[in-house]
Amino acid sequence: MSLTRSTYGERAKRHPNLAAKALLETIERKKSNLCVSVDVTSPSDFLNVIDVVDGLQNSHPSQTHVDIIEDFDPSLIDRLTNLSKKHDFLIFEDRKFADIGNTVALQYSSGVQKIASWSHITNAHPVPGPSIITGLKSVGLPLGRGLLLLAEMSTKGSLATGSYTEEAVRMARAHSDFVIGFIAQRRMEDVARDDTTSDKEDLLILTPGVGLESRGDSMGQQYRTPEEVILESGCDVIIVGRGIYGKSSDVDVQAVQAQAEKYRRAGWEAYEKRLA
Amino acid sequence: MSLTRSTYGERAKRHPNLAAKALLETIERKKSNLCVSVDVTSPSDFLNVIDVVDGLQNSHPSQTHVDIIEDFDPSLIDRLTNLSKKHDFLIFEDRKFADIGNTVALQYSSGVQKIASWSHITNAHPVPGPSIITGLKSVGLPLGRGLLLLAEMSTKGSLATGSYTEEAVRMARAHSDFVIGFIAQRRMEDVARDDTTSDKEDLLILTPGVGLESRGDSMGQQYRTPEEVILESGCDVIIVGRGIYGKSSDVDVQAVQAQAEKYRRAGWEAYEKRLA
Repeated sequence: MSLTRSTYGERAKRHPNLAAKALLETIERKKSNLCVSVDVTSPSDFLNVIDVVDGLQNSHPSQTHVDIIEDFDPSLIDRLTNLSKKHDFLIFEDRKFADIGNTVALQYSSGVQKIASWSHITNAHPVPGPSIITGLKSVGLPLGRGLLLLAEMSTKGSLATGSYTEEAVRMARAHSDFVIGFIAQRRMEDVARDDTTSDKEDLLILTPGVGLESRGDSMGQQYRTPEEVILESGCDVIIVGRGIYGKSSDVDVQAVQAQAEKYRRAGWEAYEKRLA
Repeated sequence: MSLTRSTYGERAKRHPNLAAKALLETIERKKSNLCVSVDVTSPSDFLNVIDVVDGLQNSHPSQTHVDIIEDFDPSLIDRLTNLSKKHDFLIFEDRKFADIGNTVALQYSSGVQKIASWSHITNAHPVPGPSIITGLKSVGLPLGRGLLLLAEMSTKGSLATGSYTEEAVRMARAHSDFVIGFIAQRRMEDVARDDTTSDKEDLLILTPGVGLESRGDSMGQQYRTPEEVILESGCDVIIVGRGIYGKSSDVDVQAVQAQAEKYRRAGWEAYEKRLA
């Protein structure tokens, strides 16, 4: 059965990577294919947004950008990890690694943030070539982590198209023990497919640039609706940021909660329609 | 006169961007086109390496990766900034920004590291499209900073080739007030050139993957010599990391100093041969 006709739960049972399995299981359990991207700079806003969106079971996983948080200290990670257990969600640090193997291995394992020690999933650009995967895998695979490659971007004028996207898919297939899928706008099973491509391949598609209303910002971001992304393009997870907590620097917890629930419902209904 | 036949000092006088001008002036003054990439994780090694290589006038600028430093705290930046004044070098944080405009603006200005407040030069991947430049420029230009685009990478299987590189060059030209050049392996004046391309364009080329001896590592990095890079390919700055301070976790200050001087001399002699 094709991936777009299978339930998240069925795919979870078959998936060999621990992080992907956990992600699919939790999506099924929480009935949420919404990933809230928490791009706020205040530590208290950061924890509040995650607490309120995940507490209501409406986001999974939570996408973080810990490198923009002011006054970051390691206790923030303890609190994030506690929330992740309390509210049953995985953490996806949207680090967009993009350096040579040796450097990304250090960036992933070391520094103030020690991303590998707490983030179940992270992502990387394929632009440096396969060494970026080798470098990250040397750190992440022993910890049961999973990596997403940025095969496409939702911004205007993105260079992640054509042969770039095809190479990203080939790189992912060559490291399918650690690469669990893509940041992309559509399914990738048919991209760069050849005789060696496994029929059992299950590379997840997580899709940013999703909005219910807004069609773009002044900085080149472009938006599509949950229905376009999940039902029409067959993607697995919608990633929503400012559509949920707005652009103001003050976070209104109740409004955030209501918006997150709206997106969760839209994403899940599009998935149910796809299965029907 | 072509850029490769002009001195750094002549180019400094003509360059409109403050960070590029300062970089070219300092290269001329220090007789060093060596940029030492300080990829160490210990704060004391980090400051020691910078102190010893820049103290002997043999490195300029210093390339940093503050995101891999353990126990990073803001005082480290104060000490780095003091060293930069004491030893007359610019700081180039090799952050390789690679996200959408709104996010990179936050990553550049905010977080624990507040890169824009202390790093004269930083770099970005062009893959998200022009919005990455717009986002970074909104923060960096008012501070007199300069940006390098990664037009090519020195790793095996890099996807930054062909039309990707051409697009990077077009993006740089469209934002030449803030983009001061490229991370690349060769000059870019003739890439994607058309009738609108200015003859006065001076986009600097900083080149990583330089080694006197080693030809590669196990993680896909490939090396060329200073003579190949500066004389044959006409690049402006050689970036050297592990070729100078080695792979061991203990940094031998005297050995680092001797290696840095060897690379500085090789880079400068290649430049003098090019002018002759």
